[in-house]
Amino acid sequence: MDFNEKNATEAVLNSFAGIKDNRLKEIMSSIITHLHEVVKEVEPTEEEWMKAIMFLTKTGYMSDDRRQEFILLSDVLGVSMLLDSINNRKSKNETETTVLGPFHTPSSKMNNGDNIANNVEGENCIVKGKIVDVNNNVISGASIEVWQSGPDGLYDVQKEGNLVDLRGTFMSQHDGSYLFRTVKPQYYPIPVDGPVGDLLNSLDRHPFRPAHVHFMVKANGYKDLVTHAFIDGDKYLESDTVFAVKKSLIRKLEEGFDEENNSKCFFLNFDIVMESIKKGA
Amino acid sequence: MDFNEKNATEAVLNSFAGIKDNRLKEIMSSIITHLHEVVKEVEPTEEEWMKAIMFLTKTGYMSDDRRQEFILLSDVLGVSMLLDSINNRKSKNETETTVLGPFHTPSSKMNNGDNIANNVEGENCIVKGKIVDVNNNVISGASIEVWQSGPDGLYDVQKEGNLVDLRGTFMSQHDGSYLFRTVKPQYYPIPVDGPVGDLLNSLDRHPFRPAHVHFMVKANGYKDLVTHAFIDGDKYLESDTVFAVKKSLIRKLEEGFDEENNSKCFFLNFDIVMESIKKGA
Repeated sequence: MDFNEKNATEAVLNSFAGIKDNRLKEIMSSIITHLHEVVKEVEPTEEEWMKAIMFLTKTGYMSDDRRQEFILLSDVLGVSMLLDSINNRKSKNETETTVLGPFHTPSSKMNNGDNIANNVEGENCIVKGKIVDVNNNVISGASIEVWQSGPDGLYDVQKEGNLVDLRGTFMSQHDGSYLFRTVKPQYYPIPVDGPVGDLLNSLDRHPFRPAHVHFMVKANGYKDLVTHAFIDGDKYLESDTVFAVKKSLIRKLEEGFDEENNSKCFFLNFDIVMESIKKGA
Repeated sequence: MDFNEKNATEAVLNSFAGIKDNRLKEIMSSIITHLHEVVKEVEPTEEEWMKAIMFLTKTGYMSDDRRQEFILLSDVLGVSMLLDSINNRKSKNETETTVLGPFHTPSSKMNNGDNIANNVEGENCIVKGKIVDVNNNVISGASIEVWQSGPDGLYDVQKEGNLVDLRGTFMSQHDGSYLFRTVKPQYYPIPVDGPVGDLLNSLDRHPFRPAHVHFMVKANGYKDLVTHAFIDGDKYLESDTVFAVKKSLIRKLEEGFDEENNSKCFFLNFDIVMESIKKGA
């Protein structure tokens, strides 16, 4: 009956005998087995265990409607990207996925061509592309949510006040195209004023992410797509602190001219290939 | 460069290359390896992952100065007891250890014989014993912290107000003995109004712990001892929800008479054998 090092894991697994939900039983059994393995491998002292307890507690405390520190933790430990890989195995030429990140919030519908950067100064940038299927058929009426940080490296939700900026929801046109105006994205640090920042510091890791624009694209009959467009040449492309860069998502910024606004601007071309929900389509 | 299912764990482990603290590196490497293994084994959906994120967030939120929900989680998953076993390997006849639990707080010094149960009604009980070393030499001047729940199954810190009750710090006498008055302990449920309660419910596990009195004993030259005295016959001895029962810690309650208070009372005899810090002593 005594619980000891040898029978500990078995004792806890036995306590799951009554679980009616088989999927929950599978998940909990895996968690317990590996969690106990960690404890057996590293043999934490009581002090180390208490440090872990306090770290997790602070991570919960730091989270609210505008910030999710546990998602950030999952991101910097490569868990989010691993999950993303597992849930988005590609067989064809579909656009690759990457992490959602902790800063997604719903945004207003905007018109094709609108500017999402209304409260920041930066270099003008036009982001445009086409939504297509794997056979290059255009997809019109797709919902395209975009969000990004400003030139100061901050998302709107990281600032005081409740001003929505640098995010919007567009719709692909009859020819599958979309276009919106914004400012050139810049690399930036993830928030380091919480426990995840302290952890990165202890791990001697920098907190930077290479410049990118987030995309969440939804269209009837297609799998929701969560991804980023990255900017070629960024110095953090090789060491993104959340491991989210994929070569296929990097684009060169091209210099050009915005006729409508009579101003110089960059162009970021980002076509998106959606995956059909129908098997084999 | 692309992060994928195959290289995910390696990529994160490589990001630890700069860690100066070898112990931290060892701990984090073990955590990452097993955390990724869990994700690969169970292949969580995004919804399942978000459920886990929200569970951890709520567990952090639920914790404060008077309640530590992450310790409770560690307890019900057998992690606390596993850690306890690893950190308290016994070679001789030392008293076995068990979990600290989430309800320990510092308590006032009391005099031998004092009553720690001042604000609850219950059956009188005298707890007494002797503090000795492995060779049965008495240890005087040991600090003996005790705490327990009341007959309603609640610890003082679980109640409104800041009334300290059912806890105290005693000192072993010249002959190594100690004695204090209290009420008979009763089995009780761990707090189920938080995420850990929800988890136990999902796992079809009951939340009960068999009746016990907590002890934390400290003496110069001896290893701090954290343990419980359990009551024989309790219906939850075989299924303690935090896996903390050890046969050697179970005692029969004996019926008797408290001469000093001229009342019937139970006696709980609990001798404690301390482990010397000196090797081989």
